[in-house]
Amino acid sequence: MTTRATGLSSPWGMAFLLDGRLLVTERTGGLKLLSGEGSVLGNVGLALPNLVVEGQGGLMDVALDPAFASNGRVYLSFSERDPGNPALNGTAVARGELSADARTLSNVTVIYRQQPKVASTAHFGSRLVFDREGRLWVTLGDRRTNEQRGFAQDLTRGNGKVVRITTDGAPAPGNPTWPAGALAETWSYGLRNPQGAAVHPATGDLWTSDHGPQGGDEINRTVAGANFGWPLASHGQEYGTTTPVGPQTLAGTVGPAWVWNTRDGQPWTGGAMSSPAPAGISFYTGTAVPQWNGNLFVTSLAGRALWRLTLDGNTVTGQERLLASRNQRLRDVEQGPDGALYLLTDDGQLLRYGP
Amino acid sequence: MTTRATGLSSPWGMAFLLDGRLLVTERTGGLKLLSGEGSVLGNVGLALPNLVVEGQGGLMDVALDPAFASNGRVYLSFSERDPGNPALNGTAVARGELSADARTLSNVTVIYRQQPKVASTAHFGSRLVFDREGRLWVTLGDRRTNEQRGFAQDLTRGNGKVVRITTDGAPAPGNPTWPAGALAETWSYGLRNPQGAAVHPATGDLWTSDHGPQGGDEINRTVAGANFGWPLASHGQEYGTTTPVGPQTLAGTVGPAWVWNTRDGQPWTGGAMSSPAPAGISFYTGTAVPQWNGNLFVTSLAGRALWRLTLDGNTVTGQERLLASRNQRLRDVEQGPDGALYLLTDDGQLLRYGP
Repeated sequence: MTTRATGLSSPWGMAFLLDGRLLVTERTGGLKLLSGEGSVLGNVGLALPNLVVEGQGGLMDVALDPAFASNGRVYLSFSERDPGNPALNGTAVARGELSADARTLSNVTVIYRQQPKVASTAHFGSRLVFDREGRLWVTLGDRRTNEQRGFAQDLTRGNGKVVRITTDGAPAPGNPTWPAGALAETWSYGLRNPQGAAVHPATGDLWTSDHGPQGGDEINRTVAGANFGWPLASHGQEYGTTTPVGPQTLAGTVGPAWVWNTRDGQPWTGGAMSSPAPAGISFYTGTAVPQWNGNLFVTSLAGRALWRLTLDGNTVTGQERLLASRNQRLRDVEQGPDGALYLLTDDGQLLRYGP
Repeated sequence: MTTRATGLSSPWGMAFLLDGRLLVTERTGGLKLLSGEGSVLGNVGLALPNLVVEGQGGLMDVALDPAFASNGRVYLSFSERDPGNPALNGTAVARGELSADARTLSNVTVIYRQQPKVASTAHFGSRLVFDREGRLWVTLGDRRTNEQRGFAQDLTRGNGKVVRITTDGAPAPGNPTWPAGALAETWSYGLRNPQGAAVHPATGDLWTSDHGPQGGDEINRTVAGANFGWPLASHGQEYGTTTPVGPQTLAGTVGPAWVWNTRDGQPWTGGAMSSPAPAGISFYTGTAVPQWNGNLFVTSLAGRALWRLTLDGNTVTGQERLLASRNQRLRDVEQGPDGALYLLTDDGQLLRYGP
């Protein structure tokens, strides 16, 4: 484990460029260019109108276009203020073109906006992952208020959804068929605050992490058309109580592939639950650490650790809790071109974990 | 009083462009472009090698070249890591050229470095102000450790100094004559952490604010060649004690033009002192608020207020404590093109104060 960079400002997401350099988003609004060794090479010039940095919101994830080598396109998720009513905001996705020297992102256009915008500073989602067909998955939180969490079951609203869009922001061809009135970009629903997303290297499925309430943190195989149950079904409890949010299973909903009801992953033995608070996730496809191959790595904020989940097909078979001794809130994990894992910490560090 | 912007990340310094737009530095490394109305228009693309964002350090002040209209030059102060020994850092000044659209700062060159670099994350200074001859004053802190505070009296070191340099970073012509071995860029010395600086509109003198220890916060008329006494003479006390740092006056040193020994500016009545912690300062030269004309405005961090100091020539004749009800740490103040005062707060706001 080596610390590659310090002094980043609430780093949230990252994307490796083809030459090994790294773009890192800072929730406070910066997009930083780092060398492969972690030196901060500079701030990328960038205009994101109506960016709101408040609570959990700000600049969040970054993803490269599948054809980045030829078109230089970069996608950013961020919380966007409603210019007509500054009390309201919502997750949005912008697309821009990175200059050849990677110092400027120009022609920045907002291609997608979560609807409706609401008065909240929490539960934005919002990871960006391309599928194998070049469509963009965007994870969207429920925006947290008691009313809004119910909207995760409402197909006419963007709360608590995964959407799948084209690079122009339109609903992607091949999305599930929904009842009339549903948002056509919807991929799956019934989520709370999915803050991690990764494509399974063998199946192409989208896997996500989801912040449960008190307990009930989840890993979901986010298949097309599925309802993951929030807030009708959950393994978690209402905050400050031992009252279950709902039943753990419910007909018509899909249960999690993995669930945590304690912050450190020990079995829950009754009483109040707690939450590791999972954020960014990545499947490991490298050979540098052979025993990691095919594992799903899950960062943890409140749990201050990195989870290594082993899988057999679509079944999670076990977990290992790593890096807890560092005692850092971990926000995102990506596999680097060198086959190591790269981690972002809420206290501003880029870590390299690997041989 | 209106809040013009929120969500800035530890904003530290600002400079109005000729068209009324505003550059704001964020200590966490960002340089933001704002409209005159406070909308964040974007991040300015920028490379500051070896920027270290830690403790009180990071990206700090910004100033425009006196010939900015023709040369587009912008100056930034920041804390710079020693590439050869990452434990060490020091205040540095970089110069760059702002593109016509104000979206990119290119050809960034470090023109000046405080010497020596030390292992500390505090007391960097570092305000940038041009004098009437187009020379650049840079305020430099003592770097705080017990050993380093003594260096404020050592003319061979940059600790606790004001320096005056050319736009290429060389010692400016007309600087005071010093003993052999002294740094030729030195303008005045014996300061602790001068975090505010402004040119008096009538005299052209440099006035600075200085963080005292516990008590002993100062406003200094920072005339050429003067020794302001730190740490040999001070009005303040050693932290956590009632022990004076030294005598209040000392032959050969120049006393402050104003001093605070209590956080709220009430007379000190014995016991432990406290400090308003003054940061950015500005003389008001506008007519929008006639009764402010010629006053010196001083932001206060721990004191969470704006001081209005009245002057008669070089004598401070009184103080008024403003904006205390907002209860915000105020970092910098500048007069805007509309004759109002603009303030930056540590919690990320740009405020407009005026009619």
